[in-house]
Amino acid sequence: MKFELLTSDGKARAGVLETAHGFIETPAFMPVGTQGSVKAIEQRELIEVGAQIILGNTYHLYLRPGTDIIQAAGGLHRFIGWNKPILTDSGGYQVFSLNELRKIDEEGVTFKSHLDGSAHLFTPESVVQIQRQLGSDIMMVLDECAPYPSDLEYARRSNALTLRWADRCKSAFDAGKELYGHSQALFGIVQGSIFPEVRQNSARDLVKIGFDGYAIGGLAVGEPAEVMYAIVEVCEALLPVDKPRYLMGVGTPINLIEAVARGVDMFDCVLPTRNGRNANIFGRTGSINLRNAKFKTDFSPPDPDCSCYTCSNFSRAYLCHLFHVKEILGLQLATIHNLSFYLWLMRETRTAIKEHRFGEWRRKMVNQLRSEDQVVAT
Amino acid sequence: MKFELLTSDGKARAGVLETAHGFIETPAFMPVGTQGSVKAIEQRELIEVGAQIILGNTYHLYLRPGTDIIQAAGGLHRFIGWNKPILTDSGGYQVFSLNELRKIDEEGVTFKSHLDGSAHLFTPESVVQIQRQLGSDIMMVLDECAPYPSDLEYARRSNALTLRWADRCKSAFDAGKELYGHSQALFGIVQGSIFPEVRQNSARDLVKIGFDGYAIGGLAVGEPAEVMYAIVEVCEALLPVDKPRYLMGVGTPINLIEAVARGVDMFDCVLPTRNGRNANIFGRTGSINLRNAKFKTDFSPPDPDCSCYTCSNFSRAYLCHLFHVKEILGLQLATIHNLSFYLWLMRETRTAIKEHRFGEWRRKMVNQLRSEDQVVAT
Repeated sequence: MKFELLTSDGKARAGVLETAHGFIETPAFMPVGTQGSVKAIEQRELIEVGAQIILGNTYHLYLRPGTDIIQAAGGLHRFIGWNKPILTDSGGYQVFSLNELRKIDEEGVTFKSHLDGSAHLFTPESVVQIQRQLGSDIMMVLDECAPYPSDLEYARRSNALTLRWADRCKSAFDAGKELYGHSQALFGIVQGSIFPEVRQNSARDLVKIGFDGYAIGGLAVGEPAEVMYAIVEVCEALLPVDKPRYLMGVGTPINLIEAVARGVDMFDCVLPTRNGRNANIFGRTGSINLRNAKFKTDFSPPDPDCSCYTCSNFSRAYLCHLFHVKEILGLQLATIHNLSFYLWLMRETRTAIKEHRFGEWRRKMVNQLRSEDQVVAT
Repeated sequence: MKFELLTSDGKARAGVLETAHGFIETPAFMPVGTQGSVKAIEQRELIEVGAQIILGNTYHLYLRPGTDIIQAAGGLHRFIGWNKPILTDSGGYQVFSLNELRKIDEEGVTFKSHLDGSAHLFTPESVVQIQRQLGSDIMMVLDECAPYPSDLEYARRSNALTLRWADRCKSAFDAGKELYGHSQALFGIVQGSIFPEVRQNSARDLVKIGFDGYAIGGLAVGEPAEVMYAIVEVCEALLPVDKPRYLMGVGTPINLIEAVARGVDMFDCVLPTRNGRNANIFGRTGSINLRNAKFKTDFSPPDPDCSCYTCSNFSRAYLCHLFHVKEILGLQLATIHNLSFYLWLMRETRTAIKEHRFGEWRRKMVNQLRSEDQVVAT
């Protein structure tokens, strides 16, 4: 994997990430394809809305359909019919968020499937092996995402374990080999809750191990946005300029712009897809909920300045109707628009950086996006 | 509306129906867009799979979003973003199938909404007016679809009422005017349960009134397929050659071919869409259910001879996975394929008729379609 930083404008960066399955222009937003499908949108439509990379969840894919089936298909790209880059997480986050009975020790994390209660063990080595079988372009290390709030002592201990796991992941990665003839990259994950000291140790030690890119994990888990931004700044100061930075699980359109302003290159979040399925439409002047009765006779496009399939062909009134009568098409059209909006936002942000007018763009967009209808981040 | 019969091959017919919103090549299959959306498929995809006309249900659209909203949008075509032909039914069928408490009298049918219990009256005149407001290219008369089984006496009385209603519909149609500047057509509906004598009276009297086309209603309601075919033959013998014949609510791929062989030009049915959402995939050699565990590692296309988006890009194993994990994309891909299959079947049938080899085509296809996995018609 190769990352080239093209331009900076303040801390904001425009770059290109080259993977075996193609280029990713940064800042980049990655739609979330949890179970091998970005919910309610077709693969060709992901390309249409401008997605250059999607995310797959190792935890879910490991349980269903199972790593063996994906390997038999020739890897995740072939199994799901997506020939562009894929990033897979390590599965750790889902183990911690979906399993109340998981047990963490030095070896790894033992958990029970949320589906059938069967027992499983994820270790740093096994999640690298699973991601080899998935064949993702970018693999993530196993980490513990500390709950929020955590105390300093917990954050220190947790991060120390996460660092030992990161080291083992790197060793397993170096000792292993790709299965499908295309190279894979491995990203480390900075943890440390909201404690600058722990975050700094985490970033420094990960950089010593050496990864193809660095994620900032454990944020957007309940802390105030300002705390999140402050922690991003702490991490950014210690991460190498020549490697991509990925802020995991973030966020609202404003979160994305603010994180780009602090040097982040990559994002993933279920917000555009999940909110879309709840009739929440992101727009250039804030967001609206199309279930609201006032839209029943509003024949204007969902987002009047958008040129996506949905906004070019259908009205708020029609989408309002589709949501009220529970037609699947409502989920499809809202998803197409929301992802179009997120990917448009990243493209425009990138252009603004390249033209050295990011500061102005940031002020204008953040202002516009703060409408009275603004949906609260989930 | 203009109908031109291009070729006949035995009783089978190839024609062209011209409406204000474009041509429909017959034999034609009309995907069902109950509530202003063909379930789980986008309008542009309907065009892609070859749909030249879709059906809307007056009963559902009248209740939600309501005729006033559709009129405010400028008619159903504009409301749903579909610029090709639309046929609307009269609402009668849903009143009879969804309402246990409806009351029929000479005036019309009084029913309670299945949504909120509110009382409504459909009369021959009001359903014509509603369909004027919807602006469909082809409108249907109000009829009573006699339950199956009905006795002869009931069928006679019911049909006599249906004929008086048909006459009133025609008068209301002639006295009224289109609202959106495009002309609309009105089809009569032959009823009479499974009694040839009643069906003959129905057909004769409808032809005397004079309609733009003739539907055969009240079939595929539980009677054996052979009885249905026999009744189609009885009706066909009395319907004018120069008008389109539409067999309502039918059916399986074999039903379609057999009805074409008996002179039918148009069909609608929820089978391809509804079965698709249940993982039932129609194919050139019968149908399969992709929830079956044997497809978990079957990496061949859903229908190997199909060139639709689904079959060109995805495997049975992937669709099997999508259905097992309840991903919306499974519904989308199955719907795209099943409609592609139905519309392919109609195109191929049309070509066979034009090339005067329909008999051979019919034998070959019916034989192929009778595989051991054949899904029973619903």
